[in-house]
Amino acid sequence: MSQRENGNIEPVAWANGCIRLLDQTKLPHQVCWVEIDNWRDTASAIRTMIVRGAPAIGCTAALGLALAGRCTIAPGRDAFLDKLQVAADGLCEARPTAVNLSWAVNRLMTLARSIAEVTEIKQALIDEALKMIDEDIQINRKMGKFGAELLPDTCNVMTHCNAGALATAGFGTALGVIRAAVEEGKHVNVFADETRPRLQGLKLTAWELMESGIPVTVITDNMSAALMHTNRIDCVIVGADRIASNGDTANKIGTYGLAVIAAHHKVPFYVAAPVSTFDSSLANGLGIPIEQRDPTEVTHVDGLSLGPQNVAAWNPAFDVTPAELITAIITERGVIRPPFTGSIASILKVAE
Amino acid sequence: MSQRENGNIEPVAWANGCIRLLDQTKLPHQVCWVEIDNWRDTASAIRTMIVRGAPAIGCTAALGLALAGRCTIAPGRDAFLDKLQVAADGLCEARPTAVNLSWAVNRLMTLARSIAEVTEIKQALIDEALKMIDEDIQINRKMGKFGAELLPDTCNVMTHCNAGALATAGFGTALGVIRAAVEEGKHVNVFADETRPRLQGLKLTAWELMESGIPVTVITDNMSAALMHTNRIDCVIVGADRIASNGDTANKIGTYGLAVIAAHHKVPFYVAAPVSTFDSSLANGLGIPIEQRDPTEVTHVDGLSLGPQNVAAWNPAFDVTPAELITAIITERGVIRPPFTGSIASILKVAE
Repeated sequence: MSQRENGNIEPVAWANGCIRLLDQTKLPHQVCWVEIDNWRDTASAIRTMIVRGAPAIGCTAALGLALAGRCTIAPGRDAFLDKLQVAADGLCEARPTAVNLSWAVNRLMTLARSIAEVTEIKQALIDEALKMIDEDIQINRKMGKFGAELLPDTCNVMTHCNAGALATAGFGTALGVIRAAVEEGKHVNVFADETRPRLQGLKLTAWELMESGIPVTVITDNMSAALMHTNRIDCVIVGADRIASNGDTANKIGTYGLAVIAAHHKVPFYVAAPVSTFDSSLANGLGIPIEQRDPTEVTHVDGLSLGPQNVAAWNPAFDVTPAELITAIITERGVIRPPFTGSIASILKVAE
Repeated sequence: MSQRENGNIEPVAWANGCIRLLDQTKLPHQVCWVEIDNWRDTASAIRTMIVRGAPAIGCTAALGLALAGRCTIAPGRDAFLDKLQVAADGLCEARPTAVNLSWAVNRLMTLARSIAEVTEIKQALIDEALKMIDEDIQINRKMGKFGAELLPDTCNVMTHCNAGALATAGFGTALGVIRAAVEEGKHVNVFADETRPRLQGLKLTAWELMESGIPVTVITDNMSAALMHTNRIDCVIVGADRIASNGDTANKIGTYGLAVIAAHHKVPFYVAAPVSTFDSSLANGLGIPIEQRDPTEVTHVDGLSLGPQNVAAWNPAFDVTPAELITAIITERGVIRPPFTGSIASILKVAE
């Protein structure tokens, strides 16, 4: 187990000049790591979901760009930056929905362009990527503190997909809120839906919470309404891949339906996300690109074909939850509430 | 392929003095049959879901009771009926939620008690069980005709679980409506959700529709909201396992959540069920017993463990959709609409 001292899981790290990724396609049955020494393999690891989760792929892409910088040989600074841009574009294309990916890559590209010497750029890229990993954990801890205030001392919380330590540099966004509440002595029971097709709830969230000693019960995605009807569920907390200016939130497929069901049962629906998840270039969720993945993810589980041969399937990896279904958004700068157009703009200004 | 001349699939039949069941746990990869010659194995086949679907388990239980009658040796009529009642109780206990099971068994027990001679009872049980199978197909065809009127000439229809030929003696309830519409020349595109944990949508509905040449696309259960938001879905049609006097409807887990999501998108939500599914002893859905199944159905798929070892899981096999989320109920006596307390009572009186 590679865990930080605080007990958090470390899905992405820098070791011996390589990226070291906890292979999330193998969890929970195998805990093993992949070492990557070039940006193309980094993009591939993001695409195949060896690493996943908006903040984690942001950090990984940053390290991938640092690797690209280190390996690039060019006849001058301009040629170097051109080659670096190719890697930046390749990394950004790995997965289109989570804005944290391009946010991280663009942050490094801006830094690179601000430095005169190529050798200095190379070192700065590595330093900045490592700084982003540390920042991400600090951000999650802040988010956790703000979010924990929303949870009663004893509560049942539902979550979707994995917005945990595994989805970030550590500690987690949605699960970070739960971790912070538990650290404060609160008793949190988590209900995790399995999150088909890739089963991140069953495979990752359940594993991560069990590793941390936090009680968790898994349900299939279609049980959430029955669960809210028959049990007291105090709130739903999910992560986010991209949040538009009006609060419309792209997150793992199934989030939107869960928000509809939560609203029907008057269960508060919280999104936990760092400000790097906000895309102020988009007025609303309509402009968020939704990644379509291979239909065999729906018709197969772990390589096992379950349906009839050649059956048609639809496989959008994300959906958009309209702002009106979201009770509050938990960020590292505080908890913001509707009307989101104003509250998001205000909180983003704090950074400027 | 065992199919009736009309192209329908035959999941339960009487052959050579045995029950012949299409083994639905093996579909879609293997099309094979199980022969059963006693009531205990019949109950076991119902419990393990070799046969499933409310009307199909009713027909199967009726044949199982006929087998019990044929095999029972007793010193007189009273002793015979006592032994028959043991089998009746055993069959009814196989699965608790679908009322069609006890409805079928009670119909045969009432018949048995009305006949003086044991040898006559034995033959009457077989004749009545076979009559019920034929009746079920006729009922489904009538239901199909009534239901088909609700579908536009070209339409996209969502369904949950399998309420098809495989869930009945043939033709199907929800899928019977779709079959009838297609027979009338309508163009119906079906979206089937996979229906975790047992995947009846992916394994059975998709297979059955592909066998019948009806276009079908599979989605995971958590995609229904995104589907209704991004595509025109004309209606949802599902089957039912038990309908209370006020219209509250127990059906496969996930039906309730789908009804909430359909209501949110103003998509009509139809239940297709024979009148044998109505339980007039229950004022509302609160009294419907919900079968809890083995949690490993959630943590495993086809015997493959997917989650962490010993993870807790919740596995109710059914949920209850409140009447207010149901647009109409399609029966073999016509389509009934809210307020259901009145319309259900009226339609049940037709039978008396």
